[in-house]
Amino acid sequence: MQLTQFTDLSLRLLIYLARLPEPGMATIAEIAEYYQISRNHLVKVANSLANQGFITTTRGKGGGIQLARPANTIGVGEIVRKTEVNMNLVECFDAPNNQCRLIRNCFLKATLYEAQRAFMTVLDKYTLAEAASLDANTDLSALSSGKP
Amino acid sequence: MQLTQFTDLSLRLLIYLARLPEPGMATIAEIAEYYQISRNHLVKVANSLANQGFITTTRGKGGGIQLARPANTIGVGEIVRKTEVNMNLVECFDAPNNQCRLIRNCFLKATLYEAQRAFMTVLDKYTLAEAASLDANTDLSALSSGKP
Repeated sequence: MQLTQFTDLSLRLLIYLARLPEPGMATIAEIAEYYQISRNHLVKVANSLANQGFITTTRGKGGGIQLARPANTIGVGEIVRKTEVNMNLVECFDAPNNQCRLIRNCFLKATLYEAQRAFMTVLDKYTLAEAASLDANTDLSALSSGKP
Repeated sequence: MQLTQFTDLSLRLLIYLARLPEPGMATIAEIAEYYQISRNHLVKVANSLANQGFITTTRGKGGGIQLARPANTIGVGEIVRKTEVNMNLVECFDAPNNQCRLIRNCFLKATLYEAQRAFMTVLDKYTLAEAASLDANTDLSALSSGKP
């Protein structure tokens, strides 16, 4: 039971942006260095997040990426639903490709659906602003400088 | 967000056994044929389920596999916890190997933990007997004969 690395990195990128002081702009290079992850991988994540309307991109010198909307209007559940390409817990969730012959009389499917709904209901309770919230001990300068 | 195919097949195998009339014994070949899945794959699943105490194996002619305990004493949550090798939703759930530097001040982790607990709480409500329950229209003869 895992979320994809793509979703994991999407959440981290958005949390980074949500924690920045106004105007909340950062470069991919800065975020990649902060998390010590592949810049190329993060470019793909950023492109996807831009296509989904979570971030906007400003080109040129002084440009970068920033949240397209306030962090307190972006739901964690919304992010996971849009970045997680496959929400099919088991084969029969993918009706067109299902081959399991229990399909017509399987209470397990209903059980798993109920569990997945409970999972998403929790994520829908929280916004990106809440997920990104810091405790009093956090060193904010580390975020804006991209340094540890 | 997916369960592994190993968990999917474990659940299907256990549901098959739970639906059988007494003494509830079946062969791997019969179950593989019923679901139209690889026999070799199912042998691995059955070995794992035997090691975890969900099924017992009887060798020789007339032998096969059967549930080690009544289906109404086996929780769906228990099956998923034991068959799903990786319950680490995101990297930081795996503390020894985590590289995400948000770890010390990340409310997202708490959010995801809460969601996973909600997921498992639903599965813990149901037993294998309930997951395997049939509606009135099911052709039981198809199960015991291994034929469609």
